[in-house]
Amino acid sequence: MSGAIDLSQKLSTFSDHWSPRTVGQFNACDVMVVKVQGEFVWHKHNDTDDFFLVLKGILDIELRDRTVTLTPGQMYIVPKGVEHRPVAREEVHLLLIEPTGTPNTGDAATAAPRKV
Amino acid sequence: MSGAIDLSQKLSTFSDHWSPRTVGQFNACDVMVVKVQGEFVWHKHNDTDDFFLVLKGILDIELRDRTVTLTPGQMYIVPKGVEHRPVAREEVHLLLIEPTGTPNTGDAATAAPRKV
Repeated sequence: MSGAIDLSQKLSTFSDHWSPRTVGQFNACDVMVVKVQGEFVWHKHNDTDDFFLVLKGILDIELRDRTVTLTPGQMYIVPKGVEHRPVAREEVHLLLIEPTGTPNTGDAATAAPRKV
Repeated sequence: MSGAIDLSQKLSTFSDHWSPRTVGQFNACDVMVVKVQGEFVWHKHNDTDDFFLVLKGILDIELRDRTVTLTPGQMYIVPKGVEHRPVAREEVHLLLIEPTGTPNTGDAATAAPRKV
């Protein structure tokens, strides 16, 4: 990795939803950008906390007992084992950080393939 | 952690430089915001990669063989063991992520205390 990683530039290279792109790696974590729209599935990650930072748009992270709403410049960490469902009424751009190899649904069988 | 973490709001609560505040923790990493201005010391982290994301301002990360310049929305990961010196000609706001307990100079003896 020789220079600056521009998140907006990386986001401009694709248009599909719910398909994170890895833009960097550090300490065995993937740094990813993703575009999302609509409702994801309810899921949890048994072994990893789930980091969300909103870059554009408004994201609802539905939890079983409440909803956390994030606007640009706001982040939230879903603790391991906590069921959640991201919902984006309009397109939302996110920065995600997860240990390398974490399936996005918390379940390798239903996870979308990770793209770089 | 019950709700959204607003990075600008967290940054508005302090004004000192080079003194990161932890705003969240995930997977044994600290998520921190920091204001920097001027030149930091040359240092390296022998065991951890160093994640920088610029939220405001322009940051030069000087490496021994080149300089990486970051503007808002740009990130860079300094690999473990690589000497670097952050330089901010005007005040810069950063998001940093490091394994919990990493000294900011790579050397516990000279590191500034971590504030929460």
